[in-house]
Amino acid sequence: MALRAAFRGRAGLPGLLSCSGHGRPSPSLTTQRNNSSSPKIKVDYDQTTGVAVMHMQSPPVNSLSLDFLTELCIGVEKLEMDKGCRGLIITSSQPKVFSAGLDILEMYGKSPERCGEFWKAVQEMWLKLYGSNMTTIAAINGSSPAGGCLMSLTCDYRIMADNPRYSIGLNETQLGIVAPFWFKDTMVNTVGHRNTELALQLGLLYKPAEALKIGLVDQLVPEDQVLAVAAQTMTKWLTIPEHARQITKSMMRKPTLDKLRSNREADIQNFVSFITKDSIQKSLRMYMEMLKQKKA
Amino acid sequence: MALRAAFRGRAGLPGLLSCSGHGRPSPSLTTQRNNSSSPKIKVDYDQTTGVAVMHMQSPPVNSLSLDFLTELCIGVEKLEMDKGCRGLIITSSQPKVFSAGLDILEMYGKSPERCGEFWKAVQEMWLKLYGSNMTTIAAINGSSPAGGCLMSLTCDYRIMADNPRYSIGLNETQLGIVAPFWFKDTMVNTVGHRNTELALQLGLLYKPAEALKIGLVDQLVPEDQVLAVAAQTMTKWLTIPEHARQITKSMMRKPTLDKLRSNREADIQNFVSFITKDSIQKSLRMYMEMLKQKKA
Amino acid sequence: MALRAAFRGRAGLPGLLSCSGHGRPSPSLTTQRNNSSSPKIKVDYDQTTGVAVMHMQSPPVNSLSLDFLTELCIGVEKLEMDKGCRGLIITSSQPKVFSAGLDILEMYGKSPERCGEFWKAVQEMWLKLYGSNMTTIAAINGSSPAGGCLMSLTCDYRIMADNPRYSIGLNETQLGIVAPFWFKDTMVNTVGHRNTELALQLGLLYKPAEALKIGLVDQLVPEDQVLAVAAQTMTKWLTIPEHARQITKSMMRKPTLDKLRSNREADIQNFVSFITKDSIQKSLRMYMEMLKQKKA
Repeated sequence: MALRAAFRGRAGLPGLLSCSGHGRPSPSLTTQRNNSSSPKIKVDYDQTTGVAVMHMQSPPVNSLSLDFLTELCIGVEKLEMDKGCRGLIITSSQPKVFSAGLDILEMYGKSPERCGEFWKAVQEMWLKLYGSNMTTIAAINGSSPAGGCLMSLTCDYRIMADNPRYSIGLNETQLGIVAPFWFKDTMVNTVGHRNTELALQLGLLYKPAEALKIGLVDQLVPEDQVLAVAAQTMTKWLTIPEHARQITKSMMRKPTLDKLRSNREADIQNFVSFITKDSIQKSLRMYMEMLKQKKA
Repeated sequence: MALRAAFRGRAGLPGLLSCSGHGRPSPSLTTQRNNSSSPKIKVDYDQTTGVAVMHMQSPPVNSLSLDFLTELCIGVEKLEMDKGCRGLIITSSQPKVFSAGLDILEMYGKSPERCGEFWKAVQEMWLKLYGSNMTTIAAINGSSPAGGCLMSLTCDYRIMADNPRYSIGLNETQLGIVAPFWFKDTMVNTVGHRNTELALQLGLLYKPAEALKIGLVDQLVPEDQVLAVAAQTMTKWLTIPEHARQITKSMMRKPTLDKLRSNREADIQNFVSFITKDSIQKSLRMYMEMLKQKKA
Repeated sequence: MALRAAFRGRAGLPGLLSCSGHGRPSPSLTTQRNNSSSPKIKVDYDQTTGVAVMHMQSPPVNSLSLDFLTELCIGVEKLEMDKGCRGLIITSSQPKVFSAGLDILEMYGKSPERCGEFWKAVQEMWLKLYGSNMTTIAAINGSSPAGGCLMSLTCDYRIMADNPRYSIGLNETQLGIVAPFWFKDTMVNTVGHRNTELALQLGLLYKPAEALKIGLVDQLVPEDQVLAVAAQTMTKWLTIPEHARQITKSMMRKPTLDKLRSNREADIQNFVSFITKDSIQKSLRMYMEMLKQKKA
């Protein structure tokens, strides 16, 4: 019921979630699955520059499934342990979308144990990326709602394609679910308390120009230059004395990371008990059915 | 003495408290009283939309007296308990003023017990409004100094009349008194630490355009459209899934609310011992005398 | 090694530390010493206005040596104890520089005891200025890197010369060292979390126009009017009731001050063990040699 209301009202609020079906992938939670045997992450690591580019390549919209998150975390950890790797650029190989966020199929009709396992992987992704010693840059070459936005927010710098058909934001509320406290904390650290309060209550998705204005992204560039500019920007970051930069980054982020580290189990319990509620499961089913109708 | 200095220097600081007497009500603490038997609050509740409009109608300037606050709190509580009421718009029936803030007569020449009772009601108003489960919108159709500004800041969204003769701000310092920590916290949550530090030290009152620029209000509209735009905005907010929005709002505001909840008694003691000081009572008397001279 | 990388990369990052030697003093840590017997601070205190102007006059670039800091703290304490003194303006008598920050000679080749004594003086300067009961205004008439920027940030208001050859920022990371948590806290309180994260990781120095844009300074004026505008601004601040303003300022800053007050010894130990490391000492030596070559 709540979701229906959200969809009805959507057209009236500028910058909100749009699923108008112009051949675009739905820019949020998705139900699609790709062949789980093919790698969902491709890492190009250049040892001469010390920079790795991580391409998300899980069709159609880089949904954050348990498999995807596990692969991503393993990939990040490998790079983190390689002392020669100092910079990580995250981007998408899929057209029009950076990442559509958490995979709805991991939350619908699953056992509490499985839901808990999934949520632990979401936490792990955030802890690894927000706490990375590497310089991290998001090359946001498409829409980036919900979990996709969170992933962008973990980076040290965000470069987005200047295409008004793309949007970015933590739009969970629009779907009847709630961004947890560490999503909120990450956004507050980036755009401040008031912007976050407004964005999270309304589940706002921002066009690139709006996102730049409130500081949700740092720079807009033409779509075909996102990755090139990310590489140039990384070159500049890597001129900074490494040890001093790492200590400084940790000083800025440690209190926020520690809040989740010391509350992981409670946060998992909280998520599982919320997502397995009948009313929420019903909302998710309605949302999936709407997505199917759009595709048909 | 301190107050005199404030008044002398006022003309020099743009955007500060102005009492230039063009027939306007004094936009701050006031001494006027209206007949206490007529209702100070009028609530229009539309059950079909689920939206209540609360008109403040305590002539001349909606001063926040103990009676006014008690009526207001009872009104809010009734709406809060009505599950069908999802939105609350707060506005003024008085010309040129939203609310002039705390009633100075409640703080002058009163017993410590009475001062404490008054302060408890101010706290209660803030706790009820800042912690409301409803979507709350301030339709600021006039000046809104001190306690009037605080009331605006408790809302989820602030729409102000674009009239440069109006102003808004926590100008307590100008009167020789101090905004307590929870006024401060509410402002920091809205406009950030630095803007708050500057605004509270100088007791700044902002013209609508300035208020918009620092984020003290969210939107300016022509004076005759304030209430209509508030109603339209409310319609959009009510499309958001209710439960998810409420949890999100609570997540953003609970730490700030809890700080006062766990310090109410100490905060009352602090206020009473400050306001009953001879020097502060003398300042208040001088201020009231100045207001009387302006009226004469 | 780290420092070399910083210097190599410097040209590429707009707004970073520049030592291009156009006759300007190096706008950061310096090795120069002046005759320690002449006063490094000149205070002009006007009893009729209650305003003191503190001129920093330690050639060539007002480096914050132990002697300088000791003199400065004694000067501030004297004014603080004089109840007639209500305003303090801090400015520089040296051309082109406000203060170049901490004196590198106090950190190179010194015993741990001496390093600890130096750091305690840096803490004391910050505690005295950030916690001052007086209204404090920085009249920034030249470049203000690192410790010079920190000193500016302690003030209630910052007026900077609108000269694009000047810059301001906490650029410690560029030199391979780390701004401690209380430098960071002071900057977060002024420009917010995200601006601080970016500025401190990259060790950014901002041109006046950039500094104004993020709120690192409050106002830009032509170079020859910095001190005059500071005096005019002070006159306006002094119209505010004194006691209320002081309590308000303390309410805004006390939590930040208390964090260092309750961790002074640990902070000193932390600094001493970091700065006496072989790798850091080597970095400092290389930096000093580079400065010498520039001068030759």
